[in-house]
Amino acid sequence: MFPAMSEEPTTKDRLIFAATRLFRQRGYDGTGLAEVLAEAGVPKGSLYHHFPDGKADLACAAADWTASEIIRVIDDAFAGAPDWRHGATTYCHKMAKLFDILNSADACPIFGLLFEGPDQNKFRAHAEAAFNRIIAGAARHGEAFGMSVEAAHEAAETLMIGFQGSWTLARMRRNATTLRSLPNRLYGAIAR
Amino acid sequence: MFPAMSEEPTTKDRLIFAATRLFRQRGYDGTGLAEVLAEAGVPKGSLYHHFPDGKADLACAAADWTASEIIRVIDDAFAGAPDWRHGATTYCHKMAKLFDILNSADACPIFGLLFEGPDQNKFRAHAEAAFNRIIAGAARHGEAFGMSVEAAHEAAETLMIGFQGSWTLARMRRNATTLRSLPNRLYGAIAR
Repeated sequence: MFPAMSEEPTTKDRLIFAATRLFRQRGYDGTGLAEVLAEAGVPKGSLYHHFPDGKADLACAAADWTASEIIRVIDDAFAGAPDWRHGATTYCHKMAKLFDILNSADACPIFGLLFEGPDQNKFRAHAEAAFNRIIAGAARHGEAFGMSVEAAHEAAETLMIGFQGSWTLARMRRNATTLRSLPNRLYGAIAR
Repeated sequence: MFPAMSEEPTTKDRLIFAATRLFRQRGYDGTGLAEVLAEAGVPKGSLYHHFPDGKADLACAAADWTASEIIRVIDDAFAGAPDWRHGATTYCHKMAKLFDILNSADACPIFGLLFEGPDQNKFRAHAEAAFNRIIAGAARHGEAFGMSVEAAHEAAETLMIGFQGSWTLARMRRNATTLRSLPNRLYGAIAR
């Protein structure tokens, strides 16, 4: 989902990064372990050393990594923002820019887990945990703006629900406009 | 996605209905044509008579059928509603009830098309058309309440973006609470 890491990646990082890219483009069922190994430039033995359950473990790692990257974008967007609305707006614009850079037809490795995989309930629980972690990451900024714990959680969940729906619509339309207009949808136009 | 049709279904309907159920539960890649035929009780020749491209045609028909069913729920919800908010609230509650009745881990045949399938761009365009049809179906009710064409489209798109994000979160959590609370998220609590 995101540009390559800047530091020299470890073998484990390379596997996660290759798997994330392939799962996004081809889905879980459509991705073979041989392709992941080829793309990562890693021998098979290293894969099972880091990920004993192979592809299923890689899928969960891809979801976790994606969640961490989204939280990093959230933290960047809210750093220095004067209030929730400004932080949320910057977040939506950063993600819209990312959408424009990436192939907009690609799926999200977190939500992809909901649809596929050999052990649906384990995958569902893993996707839920990743999404809850993103909501908690955004809610921290609401609390920093003086919201109550409950209000910050509500604001963060509303933003992420709106974002998820907008991202899906943007993918359908191959157009990020709906991501950029999300703050106005959620909080109303500023000048009216 | 929905309970069985009340009238005696045609062969074509039976195929669409079986395919929709299986795509929802197992995804496009995970569903075999033999299973669709067995579940529908239809011989292979009839399948290719109605759907010359086989599984790909069935997937598009499943998305179209799902969109039509959602528009039916929208029309039911807004019939007799005094304003947009009441209609939207009834829609969310009807869909939450449906979520509780169905296996909540199942996918939506429309969004499933985004992730899988042999011809991603054709599928994406088909999913987009189905989603746009749902938005237009909701927008008609906004216009009936006196909204401008643009305002009704915006209101309908916001509702469907929120609904799509909430449905995904509900699936992750196996809990429809987030569908029932969507109107308060979008329009604010009534009594505050």
